[in-house]
Amino acid sequence: MRILVVGASGTIGQKVVETLKPSHEVLRAGRNGADVKVDIMSPDSITAMYKSIGHIDAVINASGGANFKTVSDLTPELNEKGVESKLKGQINLVLLGREYLNNGGSFTLTTGVMMDDPIPMGSSAAMANGGVKAFVKAAAIEMPRGIRINCVSPNIVQESWEKLGHLFAGFTPVSAERVARAYVKSVEGSQNGQNYEVY
Amino acid sequence: MRILVVGASGTIGQKVVETLKPSHEVLRAGRNGADVKVDIMSPDSITAMYKSIGHIDAVINASGGANFKTVSDLTPELNEKGVESKLKGQINLVLLGREYLNNGGSFTLTTGVMMDDPIPMGSSAAMANGGVKAFVKAAAIEMPRGIRINCVSPNIVQESWEKLGHLFAGFTPVSAERVARAYVKSVEGSQNGQNYEVY
Repeated sequence: MRILVVGASGTIGQKVVETLKPSHEVLRAGRNGADVKVDIMSPDSITAMYKSIGHIDAVINASGGANFKTVSDLTPELNEKGVESKLKGQINLVLLGREYLNNGGSFTLTTGVMMDDPIPMGSSAAMANGGVKAFVKAAAIEMPRGIRINCVSPNIVQESWEKLGHLFAGFTPVSAERVARAYVKSVEGSQNGQNYEVY
Repeated sequence: MRILVVGASGTIGQKVVETLKPSHEVLRAGRNGADVKVDIMSPDSITAMYKSIGHIDAVINASGGANFKTVSDLTPELNEKGVESKLKGQINLVLLGREYLNNGGSFTLTTGVMMDDPIPMGSSAAMANGGVKAFVKAAAIEMPRGIRINCVSPNIVQESWEKLGHLFAGFTPVSAERVARAYVKSVEGSQNGQNYEVY
């Protein structure tokens, strides 16, 4: 398959590329994407990316950010990053990429454990994750041309534990390799509307 | 208690007001609110509303909209209503209203059944509902001064069946009266971080 991975240079994205590469043609996208550049916060940038690469069989997104603030410090302005990047950025990859996907293709987005198992300062990220999960479940019932849509909800990964572990007290990190396999399940499998919890 | 109900003239809002009125001071807000006007899509309007009413013990939101389109017809632009109104409108009522809530007060937002039991043309509304549900769950663990936050997820209500029932094939509508009791549970009870499913 011809597979676009957005956020290909991130901790999870790298492992997804590494896992898919032996058996697929993988296009690496991101703000400094090796194959194509994209800013998912800009619909124009998303459209330009799709136009430049043409038709594909699968889109995986492993990018998207949000601000980490306690709910007492969170403002509408600080919440915007989560809305524009992790939420709308991912959904717009679907809405603007639909027509570039071959029949029977798939979208795989990324949510995260904090929507199910809340952490301090995680309410904005949780909002984005919950929005993406519900969108995926609802969109799945009416995607055209046999196109499927799923998301992967990773726990904190071992590779990020040193940097982010203080936010995840008592969590048991998972390997990025195990998380990457959930994306493979979404792309190579036949399920639709799933949120794969890799906890 | 002194309770602000935003969306007080809607099908559910009316019933919430009617249920709370015998034992509370209820302030009715909305675009044409009987007591105070507010457009939840405007942070300035939300702030002006809170300034004009002063301190309160509870905020209930029963307002917020989204466009209903198939995922093939949904565009980033059409998705904005759900983002700005049902998602950000509700979250901004919390972020901008925090300081006006008395110690031990509560916020109660509104989600909806289509995030759990998808309907055609419901992906944008589901996105907003899922975002609000996850925000509530995450924000609840760190709300200051004993303030609680919950949401109510109504099924399609009997009172809207004639107008909207065609979108909810095979659903069993519930009464607005039963939905209203979930808001009472959130306000008068002690639970926190809940999404009350009235299905």
